[in-house]
Amino acid sequence: MSRQVSPLLTDLYQLNMIQAYLDCGETQDATFELFVRKLPSRRQFLLAAGLEQALEYLENIRFAPEDIDWLAKTGKFKQNLLDYLRSFEFTGEVHAMKEGTIFFGNEPILRITAPLPQAQLVETRLINLLQFQTLIATKASRIVLAAPGKLLVDFGLRRAHGSEAGLLAARASYICGFAGTATVLAEKEFGIPTYGTMAHSYVQAHDNEMTAFEHFARSRPNQPTLLIDSYDTLKAAHKVVALSKKLKSDGITIGAVRIDSGDVITLSRQVRQILDAGGVPDIKIFVSGGLEEDSISSIVAAAAPIDGFGVGTTLTTSSDAPSLDCAYKLEEYGGRARRKRSAGKVTWPGSKQVFRKIAGNGRMAGDTLARVDETVDGEPLIHPVMSAGKRLSAPPTLTQIREHAARELERLPPPLRKLDTTAYYNVTVSPALTRLADEVDRWLIKQEHVL
Amino acid sequence: MSRQVSPLLTDLYQLNMIQAYLDCGETQDATFELFVRKLPSRRQFLLAAGLEQALEYLENIRFAPEDIDWLAKTGKFKQNLLDYLRSFEFTGEVHAMKEGTIFFGNEPILRITAPLPQAQLVETRLINLLQFQTLIATKASRIVLAAPGKLLVDFGLRRAHGSEAGLLAARASYICGFAGTATVLAEKEFGIPTYGTMAHSYVQAHDNEMTAFEHFARSRPNQPTLLIDSYDTLKAAHKVVALSKKLKSDGITIGAVRIDSGDVITLSRQVRQILDAGGVPDIKIFVSGGLEEDSISSIVAAAAPIDGFGVGTTLTTSSDAPSLDCAYKLEEYGGRARRKRSAGKVTWPGSKQVFRKIAGNGRMAGDTLARVDETVDGEPLIHPVMSAGKRLSAPPTLTQIREHAARELERLPPPLRKLDTTAYYNVTVSPALTRLADEVDRWLIKQEHVL
Repeated sequence: MSRQVSPLLTDLYQLNMIQAYLDCGETQDATFELFVRKLPSRRQFLLAAGLEQALEYLENIRFAPEDIDWLAKTGKFKQNLLDYLRSFEFTGEVHAMKEGTIFFGNEPILRITAPLPQAQLVETRLINLLQFQTLIATKASRIVLAAPGKLLVDFGLRRAHGSEAGLLAARASYICGFAGTATVLAEKEFGIPTYGTMAHSYVQAHDNEMTAFEHFARSRPNQPTLLIDSYDTLKAAHKVVALSKKLKSDGITIGAVRIDSGDVITLSRQVRQILDAGGVPDIKIFVSGGLEEDSISSIVAAAAPIDGFGVGTTLTTSSDAPSLDCAYKLEEYGGRARRKRSAGKVTWPGSKQVFRKIAGNGRMAGDTLARVDETVDGEPLIHPVMSAGKRLSAPPTLTQIREHAARELERLPPPLRKLDTTAYYNVTVSPALTRLADEVDRWLIKQEHVL
Repeated sequence: MSRQVSPLLTDLYQLNMIQAYLDCGETQDATFELFVRKLPSRRQFLLAAGLEQALEYLENIRFAPEDIDWLAKTGKFKQNLLDYLRSFEFTGEVHAMKEGTIFFGNEPILRITAPLPQAQLVETRLINLLQFQTLIATKASRIVLAAPGKLLVDFGLRRAHGSEAGLLAARASYICGFAGTATVLAEKEFGIPTYGTMAHSYVQAHDNEMTAFEHFARSRPNQPTLLIDSYDTLKAAHKVVALSKKLKSDGITIGAVRIDSGDVITLSRQVRQILDAGGVPDIKIFVSGGLEEDSISSIVAAAAPIDGFGVGTTLTTSSDAPSLDCAYKLEEYGGRARRKRSAGKVTWPGSKQVFRKIAGNGRMAGDTLARVDETVDGEPLIHPVMSAGKRLSAPPTLTQIREHAARELERLPPPLRKLDTTAYYNVTVSPALTRLADEVDRWLIKQEHVL
């Protein structure tokens, strides 16, 4: 798939505003920050993901001649806008949290400083990229926390919302500790390990289930996984035992069985018993079918003899919370801090930094949302990543991001690692930031914006 | 954006199975059907969408030399599979429901008949395309039913799950009666009308809200929409009145105001009163911000003076039901009807047709799920669309699909048009199909699949 999408994948209002900015010479530097306002229910933390794709987008955004021709033909825009877009490049500064970092409501994960029309144009796609991967990484983290030591595989491409969602969900879940994905393209594009078993159609296409198993095992002899729930799971488990003995002389070892339906806690125990009694205790049991963190947690709590889980739809759609209240807001323009005062959507003005305190036990112990030029206790989480439109360093490898995410999940206070909790993480606002917000409000009153 | 994605956007198990099919000479014609098992809660019907993209995929799927080289390098596949994929083309038959057709659980919307490896390979992407657009079209239909006579615009690109979801959600909602979208690329790719206002950042970037409004109106003089909730909505409405008078002499007419926060029922009444008293009764009121069919229905029931709605996240993620239980199942292979018996996932065997009865009042009056070769009362909904891998006719225009969907929504029985109902639509299974299912089960018992 094409990694770079059209620059026209944006909202029409961005082009309308840029036309007006150009007409009125409003092209000074602006600072926007991207953050999530309020966490969805059942989310005690978020895990930042998608920065790599966001930076790739900023480095490569260009309008092709055919884009400009088409815009001209719509008759909606003036020549100055068409000329501006024809030579458009992003030349701004970007600061961001590292991918894999845990964050909370109102904490910016990305800050863009660029001439106002540039910073405006990229809003839609930046939210589109960062919201989605962060959403999936957060969901995946919950599943990882629910299944310590288990093999987790993303099975969700088919029910993901389109091609890009499927591909990037594989990436976002791998970052958080999934072992891999079923999506072949994710291995080609990102080097993510792929896992594949067989479908019910494979079994059904054979007149005999045993023949299906044997054909598959002989054709894919490297530790194949056999799907055993097409007709009768326990009967199929006995067939696997019989087949294992037959294949042994040919040096073929069955790797695992997969159960995709039914009461998998009970079935896995019965299947384990059949496999063990049949002398094939090394065949693993893998389950799939509508699983999410709650059902996985119950299975783990019941100590069911299940070695791994394929997680599909609930992962790649983040089914219980399919969006984040993610915003990209103007915080500074023309050297002045800005904020909006819309009901329920008031923002903190100015460029900001997040400082995180780490307790003696290595756990996160509270964040401070502060002005960018303050010195506050704790580790700053937002770092420069791009200057004059160019990256400041080579992107981290997926393995490095994965290691960072794993450390972050380890540093999470134990109450926040639970699937449900009333505990929350302490994020305070620095006195200097509060003072700045008051100053902006006083200025807004002076400008007669606020009654 | 590239309309054609990589053929590697598929599950690894498809390639594993194809390897085994080729090794064992299992390449006879297979028939698969795509359907939704069970409707999500709060969905009394589904509206089929995405067929055009599915057929485009089938017509164009090819493996590039670099895909084959990469597959070879993984070391997972044998030469016969690589050779097969190198010359892969889809050469099968396709039958489908027209886009915009209303359908129900277990009713196939697509039937593929092709050599088994071909029909298998395309499963993942066909579900990925048809599930998503059908999901969004169904959600959009609910919003359309909740807002008769109102202007509806898709604002959801930023929170859609990636680029393709954003683009195709614009298409799926337009099919169902949305007036258009904010997504510029949807106009270029599909000719869908685009709508655009301004963001809060535009207002914030100006020291004075009135200046922002005036700059924008002069730069975008064709009935501009002004966003009035950045600071104080009512104060901003008064500014719009004053500005309207000032702009009149220059021949500029403000088209609408947009309110994006707060209690929009109360605010719209107050704003309407200000605009009317100010002598600008033609300025329309447009609202946005977290809307879905329920809030829109309440607004309509309250007769709030709102002319149109921008609907974002809830539309493009189908937030209350972000996936459909969509399956693609083998129904026939080697001339024999097939079904799976997995717990809770039993399928109806064989190639099927859906017959729909229409009552004297023009409303849908019940469907019959039947064998494809039966003659049953009613109108058959599944038609041939592709033969030997080529389309049988030019694709319908979006306008034609939109007209079909509008007729379908009109034919829906009134109880099913409600947002919440215990009413359900009657789908019966023909005696001949029931007999076939029994025959398949008896055969499965004979094959010793079922205990």
